[in-house]
Amino acid sequence: MDDHAAILDFLSDNVSPATPEVIAAVVQANDANAVPYGEDTWTAALQTVMAAAFDRECVTYPVTTGKTANALSLLSIAEPGALIFCHEYGHILYNELGGPAMYTGAELVGLPGEHGKIAPETFRAAIARYGTVPRGSVLNLTNATEAGTVYTPDEIARLTAIARGAGMTVHMDGARIANAIAHLGCHPADVTWRAGVDVLSFGATKNGGMGAEAIVCFDPAAAARLKEGRKRGGHVPSKMRFLSAQLLAYLADGAWLRRAAHANAMAAALVADLRDIPGVAIPVPVESNHVFLAVPQATREALVDAGYQFHLYERHGAGVIRLVTHWATTDDQIARFVATVRDAMLARTVAG
Amino acid sequence: MDDHAAILDFLSDNVSPATPEVIAAVVQANDANAVPYGEDTWTAALQTVMAAAFDRECVTYPVTTGKTANALSLLSIAEPGALIFCHEYGHILYNELGGPAMYTGAELVGLPGEHGKIAPETFRAAIARYGTVPRGSVLNLTNATEAGTVYTPDEIARLTAIARGAGMTVHMDGARIANAIAHLGCHPADVTWRAGVDVLSFGATKNGGMGAEAIVCFDPAAAARLKEGRKRGGHVPSKMRFLSAQLLAYLADGAWLRRAAHANAMAAALVADLRDIPGVAIPVPVESNHVFLAVPQATREALVDAGYQFHLYERHGAGVIRLVTHWATTDDQIARFVATVRDAMLARTVAG
Amino acid sequence: MDDHAAILDFLSDNVSPATPEVIAAVVQANDANAVPYGEDTWTAALQTVMAAAFDRECVTYPVTTGKTANALSLLSIAEPGALIFCHEYGHILYNELGGPAMYTGAELVGLPGEHGKIAPETFRAAIARYGTVPRGSVLNLTNATEAGTVYTPDEIARLTAIARGAGMTVHMDGARIANAIAHLGCHPADVTWRAGVDVLSFGATKNGGMGAEAIVCFDPAAAARLKEGRKRGGHVPSKMRFLSAQLLAYLADGAWLRRAAHANAMAAALVADLRDIPGVAIPVPVESNHVFLAVPQATREALVDAGYQFHLYERHGAGVIRLVTHWATTDDQIARFVATVRDAMLARTVAG
Amino acid sequence: MDDHAAILDFLSDNVSPATPEVIAAVVQANDANAVPYGEDTWTAALQTVMAAAFDRECVTYPVTTGKTANALSLLSIAEPGALIFCHEYGHILYNELGGPAMYTGAELVGLPGEHGKIAPETFRAAIARYGTVPRGSVLNLTNATEAGTVYTPDEIARLTAIARGAGMTVHMDGARIANAIAHLGCHPADVTWRAGVDVLSFGATKNGGMGAEAIVCFDPAAAARLKEGRKRGGHVPSKMRFLSAQLLAYLADGAWLRRAAHANAMAAALVADLRDIPGVAIPVPVESNHVFLAVPQATREALVDAGYQFHLYERHGAGVIRLVTHWATTDDQIARFVATVRDAMLARTVAG
Repeated sequence: MDDHAAILDFLSDNVSPATPEVIAAVVQANDANAVPYGEDTWTAALQTVMAAAFDRECVTYPVTTGKTANALSLLSIAEPGALIFCHEYGHILYNELGGPAMYTGAELVGLPGEHGKIAPETFRAAIARYGTVPRGSVLNLTNATEAGTVYTPDEIARLTAIARGAGMTVHMDGARIANAIAHLGCHPADVTWRAGVDVLSFGATKNGGMGAEAIVCFDPAAAARLKEGRKRGGHVPSKMRFLSAQLLAYLADGAWLRRAAHANAMAAALVADLRDIPGVAIPVPVESNHVFLAVPQATREALVDAGYQFHLYERHGAGVIRLVTHWATTDDQIARFVATVRDAMLARTVAG
Repeated sequence: MDDHAAILDFLSDNVSPATPEVIAAVVQANDANAVPYGEDTWTAALQTVMAAAFDRECVTYPVTTGKTANALSLLSIAEPGALIFCHEYGHILYNELGGPAMYTGAELVGLPGEHGKIAPETFRAAIARYGTVPRGSVLNLTNATEAGTVYTPDEIARLTAIARGAGMTVHMDGARIANAIAHLGCHPADVTWRAGVDVLSFGATKNGGMGAEAIVCFDPAAAARLKEGRKRGGHVPSKMRFLSAQLLAYLADGAWLRRAAHANAMAAALVADLRDIPGVAIPVPVESNHVFLAVPQATREALVDAGYQFHLYERHGAGVIRLVTHWATTDDQIARFVATVRDAMLARTVAG
Repeated sequence: MDDHAAILDFLSDNVSPATPEVIAAVVQANDANAVPYGEDTWTAALQTVMAAAFDRECVTYPVTTGKTANALSLLSIAEPGALIFCHEYGHILYNELGGPAMYTGAELVGLPGEHGKIAPETFRAAIARYGTVPRGSVLNLTNATEAGTVYTPDEIARLTAIARGAGMTVHMDGARIANAIAHLGCHPADVTWRAGVDVLSFGATKNGGMGAEAIVCFDPAAAARLKEGRKRGGHVPSKMRFLSAQLLAYLADGAWLRRAAHANAMAAALVADLRDIPGVAIPVPVESNHVFLAVPQATREALVDAGYQFHLYERHGAGVIRLVTHWATTDDQIARFVATVRDAMLARTVAG
Repeated sequence: MDDHAAILDFLSDNVSPATPEVIAAVVQANDANAVPYGEDTWTAALQTVMAAAFDRECVTYPVTTGKTANALSLLSIAEPGALIFCHEYGHILYNELGGPAMYTGAELVGLPGEHGKIAPETFRAAIARYGTVPRGSVLNLTNATEAGTVYTPDEIARLTAIARGAGMTVHMDGARIANAIAHLGCHPADVTWRAGVDVLSFGATKNGGMGAEAIVCFDPAAAARLKEGRKRGGHVPSKMRFLSAQLLAYLADGAWLRRAAHANAMAAALVADLRDIPGVAIPVPVESNHVFLAVPQATREALVDAGYQFHLYERHGAGVIRLVTHWATTDDQIARFVATVRDAMLARTVAG
């Protein structure tokens, strides 16, 4: 695949490079020997910095991928034979090939829901289907969702209260938690533990890391259960300082929220410009860094001809494509993309 | 833990920083957007470079830890319910908390063997205990071994021939394969596929990577089986270019073998100096970057007082400690350590 | 629990004793020594008899429970990381606590559907949600369904054709396959392999066995994969002759279909009598041995007071209870139950 | 396979029929409807009867196979990632194809030991190899052993004390516990909980059951953990009364110990007669119902020609075969076998 011919600008936030602060921190962490397997000073400092960011004692485990963060987070609270309720397009059910079930022995139950969100009544009805849920069952919420929408603190609290009432604990897949918080303008605590979340997959890679995520355990019992599970799954990097250094730089001075706010602003700019073009539709509210775009096939073909790469997301309508902005997205990239769409739509009008 | 007060010089090769060439490559890989999940140009180039290094077509999957490389390598060739034969101190049995069994569903069988090596007759007797081994059974060899010794190509070939004769395939845990090859002075092919190895865990982290290992599948069928297993275990980093860039720099111009040769030479220097001190014993032949040292308790205490950190390895004798050199070990570090031992031993002689 | 005070007549078909022919066969199988682990003459004969019953070569493995039959059937055709589509109330998803996922490593996807059946369009839409399904994915159908309804051969063929078109194989949970066939009046082949089923969980326990089910593999590759999986899960009884003897007696002279026809007829009689009572509703069509009954709470309480045990099935409506008939259900039991309901409903009318 | 031509007399105790008392109990348990899934009166009675037999409160779960009893017993006390120490020929390691690892996520460690027994020093050394064993590790002992030898209460207590000292719990595989107790002439409590056993696989099938074993949890926490694990593995037969009825008849009036004493006496008679024949060797002490016999190849061939089936057990010496007696073994069967051996040995002497 020729990365240079293809235009990756809106393919995914995973295409983005790491931020300068993250790269600098990695280089700086390389100056001397360090104790391996997380007993280093960076990982120790990360405990304090994460606790400060969330205004609460917690245990933070750096890991290398979001799937790992999810699988291990679930392992820390779910019991074998229990149920894990999630959105039917939730990453843990839709994208992880049975990994969470392998790690936990629990069964995943997918729930429908508009724009990537689970409605309280849907969750309540799902629990009712089972009468009582097995001990060690879990509610999994993604924020920002796979549709780019954002649960508010109140929406989360309503769902976690139902979970709690049924004896369940709560995991939040926060692969894009920074985008959610930047959108809401709230305190990080407000959408997590204050709203009833026990364990958080804290994403950093998509928003400017090289490859670093964290499991943030607000519940100490969950943290204790991870000691062995992490090792068993092969998820304790020996030179963990390089992960912790990334996360420290990511968190320092609120960089993570500024970087996410930029990505969100770029998505807002993109959608504002696209909406003006006659014949274009935006089927999902834009609340973070995702824009879903409905254009005619000829326009999609014009984008491909121009070199653009993107994914179809037909769950949001026939021919709908996904556009993702990130910390390094530029005004120029937006202008160029919008121009390509506009030209294609005009050509179509003229032709028609 | 105060990393700066403690002396980590010989604690493990995992304490080492990354080499300048690896850091430079990571920084350089950060210049632009790139296709995620291994579809990038770095990962494509790595296929060619690894094949050249081993003089054979192969499929290379970058992963983040050695445990992951081992578990997935085994998943690529072992069947559920089969047997995986390994040394009783083999990393997959002794250090991975059941991970390989979780990924594969196979049963591990530990074999005794002097200095970390399995003798052909021991392996043959173990197979005979079972009569026939189940379909999909595997022989696992570590090279360099957990005792720092090195299997020669002939020794490997003898063991893999027995495995082949019993219908088994062969995995090599090469967390320190560079140290083994540097010691032998042979071609990388000679200790791997030419000697009967089907899948290799190719280590880079300990020998100068930041956090990058590779699964090298000489058998295309093994490679095919990993497509889903990797994803399921959470082992497909989105920004894989940063792993592949490390591995490319590691392999370029034989850097990996030069770095390993330095580590081996440092171990040789260390043991040469230590052997001169009366009362000191070296219970295991030094063939790579491990030195096992038997000194009286008072000397061990003197090392601790001086700030040294090390692990006891009593499998090699009461009170025996492990010393590990690496690519960044210096003559000064050796001199300082040897002096500390010498002083402690002399003090003891005088006192005695 | 005092079994004698409680009235178990309609609690479940699992309450039933074994048929006289099954008990006689077990006693007869006890006359001498026999080769263990399925190498006996009963298990050999069963191969022929089952093949004759289904008019097709197949491999039959006797097991002791329906959950085991399902888990192993799925193990024989599903791959780790694949998807298993089933009804959201399918036994494998709703009642087995993650067992099928543990055995297979696959992910279960529950589909809604009226009266326990999956509609073709629902199945097609579910596949479309995934674009392509992973290699080794499976469609699981239950016949008779958990709602007591029965898929016709045509309905099954339509669903299996969709599965086949997406590269999937098909497992039928036939815990009550005899009831389904008795209702349809078709040949056993018509609802199984001729309609596209690869592997069948063939139930016998509920319909007059002591504790014997069979996995019937119409696909020889599936049978081969079970050789090791069965042993690993602990599902190869040493004195297997006692299972095979039960199954032989169950199949002999069409006993299984006659016994099921009786159970179905009893359910038809029950529902015919209940329907006459004003205020009573039957929310699900009665096609096998299940009757779902909607009566006011006072009537349910009258049943409890009379000693009846039953389960609430509120998925079919608030306060709906399940009644199950079986091979040993009698006219008297029906008359007594109907009388209890009628009296309670009349008392209510009078009171009201 | 023609069971009638072959002589199965000493092939295995699994060839034996069920005892008349077990068959009678099964027939009797069939008289009426009963609550399914272990909520029946037979299973309730079994709790009391088993507690009386072992003179201690315990929870008893009937299951259908010995592998199942072992896997679930281990699941009740072992943690994922922990170690399970057992004899290298222990059934859980040597015969169960990774089942215990699948159910528990723990790693099995096989220990050598003469005549099927683990020596305390071997166990101590194995623990020392690990330094500390992970939380939730287990010692597994088989009694009578796979070599037919019997651990005394003192021997067990010595091993369990080591286990306890290392923070481990203890499982006993008692597939032939009746033979062990009959040999020792002790109280059942003496070789189990009084000697430090937490969970017992209580075998009945080999000693006269149709197909019934029990998991006896002396530790209530272990019992609680099995509630879900049993269901998940498919090990909760719906008509459990037929298992419990077998076990009740088996235990009634000490039948189990009388039946085992007969089997042991038959083995003693067999070995007494065989020992008199010149050229015959018995390489393992005969303490229960196993006799290992070393005879020349010509004699083994003579046995095969006479129709005898048996297994080679070369772990006890080249050409050694295993003979197993059981509750139904007769004097005539012994006389016939001994005569066949004697004739073959004499023919050899004459020929030689």
